[in-house]
Amino acid sequence: MNRHPIALQIQKADKAIVAEDFDTLMDIYTHDAILVVMPGVNAVGKDEILKAFKKIGVYFKHGLQVKQNGMKVLESGNTALVLANTVVSGPNYPATERKATYVFTRSAEGIWLCSIDNSYGHEVINAKL
Amino acid sequence: MNRHPIALQIQKADKAIVAEDFDTLMDIYTHDAILVVMPGVNAVGKDEILKAFKKIGVYFKHGLQVKQNGMKVLESGNTALVLANTVVSGPNYPATERKATYVFTRSAEGIWLCSIDNSYGHEVINAKL
Repeated sequence: MNRHPIALQIQKADKAIVAEDFDTLMDIYTHDAILVVMPGVNAVGKDEILKAFKKIGVYFKHGLQVKQNGMKVLESGNTALVLANTVVSGPNYPATERKATYVFTRSAEGIWLCSIDNSYGHEVINAKL
Repeated sequence: MNRHPIALQIQKADKAIVAEDFDTLMDIYTHDAILVVMPGVNAVGKDEILKAFKKIGVYFKHGLQVKQNGMKVLESGNTALVLANTVVSGPNYPATERKATYVFTRSAEGIWLCSIDNSYGHEVINAKL
């Protein structure tokens, strides 16, 4: 239904996360992207983001599931904000819907890449870590 | 406490909104910025944003108040995402906290300008308008 190219990138990223296909996953981020690993803890740049996803895989006992329960893309030039209801679950983690916020940047080649990945939304405000 | 240059821009914008100082306010937006006027209704570009703020002023009987009850800035290169608890009130509008999301872009001159202004956060998903 939602055929925005960014929605397709997010779908590709979600599949790659579930499959732990880190090569595909890393191709979706800008080189200096920031990932909120948990509120107060950020991974910056592809090396840190890759390490974070490998740890996340272990944390979720290699059974992490991610799906989007609705999203909206707001574009301005080569920048876009995505509001998404992201549902995360795992063998040891009951399904939890997060009010996720993602920023995408369109590259010179016209590809939308994720530059800011904050699945925790407003939980980052006043994070204790 | 929060002295990030973007926090100062937001403070300046909030004061300009309250004072209906539209010249100052418009200087804080990029030329092709997008403003969510209400979920499902967007103003695109400075002309439409200016018109929207003038209507908002009338809607709030020229008594709109805006303040930020906590915010967090996540930066990646020349792009930044702001998560903010934005409190809006007016003579005919009880104080309402919105889970606002703002994207700022750093100009060639090093000034952070608002490119995506969505004070409604995830309310834009599945908007009926």
